[in-house]
Amino acid sequence: MAREFALIDRYFARPTPSAALGPGDDCALLQPTPGMQLAVTTDMLVAGTHFLPDAGPWNLGWKTLAVNLSDLAAMGARPRWVTLAGALPEADEGWIAAFADGFFACAGEYGVEVVGGDTTRGPLNLCVTALGEIEPGRALRRDAANVGEQIWVSGRPGLAALGLAQLQGRVALPEPWPRLCIAALEKPQPRVALGQALVGVASAAIDVSDGLLADLGHIARQSGCAAAVRLVQLPHLPKGESYDAALRKLALECQLAGGDDYELCFTAPVAQQQTIAAIAARLDLPLWPIGEMTAGRPGEVTVFDPEGQAVEFQHKGFEHFG
Amino acid sequence: MAREFALIDRYFARPTPSAALGPGDDCALLQPTPGMQLAVTTDMLVAGTHFLPDAGPWNLGWKTLAVNLSDLAAMGARPRWVTLAGALPEADEGWIAAFADGFFACAGEYGVEVVGGDTTRGPLNLCVTALGEIEPGRALRRDAANVGEQIWVSGRPGLAALGLAQLQGRVALPEPWPRLCIAALEKPQPRVALGQALVGVASAAIDVSDGLLADLGHIARQSGCAAAVRLVQLPHLPKGESYDAALRKLALECQLAGGDDYELCFTAPVAQQQTIAAIAARLDLPLWPIGEMTAGRPGEVTVFDPEGQAVEFQHKGFEHFG
Repeated sequence: MAREFALIDRYFARPTPSAALGPGDDCALLQPTPGMQLAVTTDMLVAGTHFLPDAGPWNLGWKTLAVNLSDLAAMGARPRWVTLAGALPEADEGWIAAFADGFFACAGEYGVEVVGGDTTRGPLNLCVTALGEIEPGRALRRDAANVGEQIWVSGRPGLAALGLAQLQGRVALPEPWPRLCIAALEKPQPRVALGQALVGVASAAIDVSDGLLADLGHIARQSGCAAAVRLVQLPHLPKGESYDAALRKLALECQLAGGDDYELCFTAPVAQQQTIAAIAARLDLPLWPIGEMTAGRPGEVTVFDPEGQAVEFQHKGFEHFG
Repeated sequence: MAREFALIDRYFARPTPSAALGPGDDCALLQPTPGMQLAVTTDMLVAGTHFLPDAGPWNLGWKTLAVNLSDLAAMGARPRWVTLAGALPEADEGWIAAFADGFFACAGEYGVEVVGGDTTRGPLNLCVTALGEIEPGRALRRDAANVGEQIWVSGRPGLAALGLAQLQGRVALPEPWPRLCIAALEKPQPRVALGQALVGVASAAIDVSDGLLADLGHIARQSGCAAAVRLVQLPHLPKGESYDAALRKLALECQLAGGDDYELCFTAPVAQQQTIAAIAARLDLPLWPIGEMTAGRPGEVTVFDPEGQAVEFQHKGFEHFG
């Protein structure tokens, strides 16, 4: 008994001033802010499916929390509390300490408290549930985009998938891309401030965790619209004339269909363009208008090349049971 | 893409009238009841550690939710919402359908809605986070027992561990115990109504998931008291004179230290005895006074035999990393 609880107490029980009761009882007790809605999300990360089995524990701790905060960001919610459940094949104290350090570094960066958890023996598996708050009726849902609105994306989707390809030796990226891409894969930055800034500005939002086209397809389907994406408006990746054709093709595939990015894709009326530009400047985060919602078949996403011709892609997203 | 989402949509997306937004977006949106506190708990179940690898999917679905509702019960909270994350080695539709049936049967029985989830490929692992509501300051914590109060337990702790022994062929229980014990193991009944009835009556509570002595030890340690348990006051299990000595010994060990029961152990002032008897009658659930909190060394639990002599036990609870 002592050993399990000592490990948990030592590394995961940190002060939780925002909770009425933190870890150590059957439940945590939380006092929601009066009048606010709760945004709730859960994500499970499995070794071999979501991260390389030899992933460093600090980065893994960071990412385990970051991917959940990304879902709160995609609703425009303010992160408040999280629970963490983990199955570990063994009680390796060094690994647990480094994992906890990474997890709490992310928690501190984004202002959430770890109010509960569960540790058990089993194949490595990490499950976080995150709770955020948002004013009723203000959340950035997937189903509220409208025909004629612009489609935007933050940062540079595709970096994470390129980073994975680099780590797996499937590509040798030119400088400075290896470092950028591996950082995007291993230590993603959930766009929490962006999500909150977009409340009242964007009509719909989603995080790009399954790939840009797949996630934009979710917005389109749930909003009853189609979407048009223009290749020339996508942010720069290794795809210029100076790179070889194989790398340009891989970069484009990663950009359109690479999973594991945690940028936000959102829609907004054209009239919001200046406001969005100001948000980008304030957050020092590039926001790219990449196309527009159209009146086509609901859920259909069409990609147009520089000549205005529709192009086809085979891999539209990340599929666990595909 | 289609297949994963189709499976989830088909079996887990059911109406969620109590949620402002149910499954299908980045987050669920919930409107907490004004003035109430949230009770939050998470439990992860792993094949081989928490259930037999060949456990039937219906019962497993039931139990996956039930063990989480038991934590809400132990705080006296009213269950409201849950999320479910699962890793599955394969997308076996029959298994998923039966698991979902069991999970939703438990959800319906206890009035909770499944508002979010995550499905992924991996070694079988099930993680639930449950949210309940309780009036501020009224939760049944572990740290509020007092010297002189009675210790109570509901139902018959030990049944689940005996059921496991029966299934594993380590014992051949006499009738009618096999059916009762296996049901306690496979389809535990979280004491949700009892927990809510004890608000304002009990001083402290915990669910008996790690074994009676271990869990009572948590109350004692966190409350700064010791505890005395009297063997003659424990509820009946196969331990009478008519059973052989080995079975009597196993039954006693299961009763005191068997994990995986989801009864409540609670403390209350002696003056609450009649109120507690009335709760037992109303819920048709036996509640047994099994000892009292004492002024001894904080956290120490002593068991007394019929002659009033202290007895020693080696196994005080369930320990994953022991």
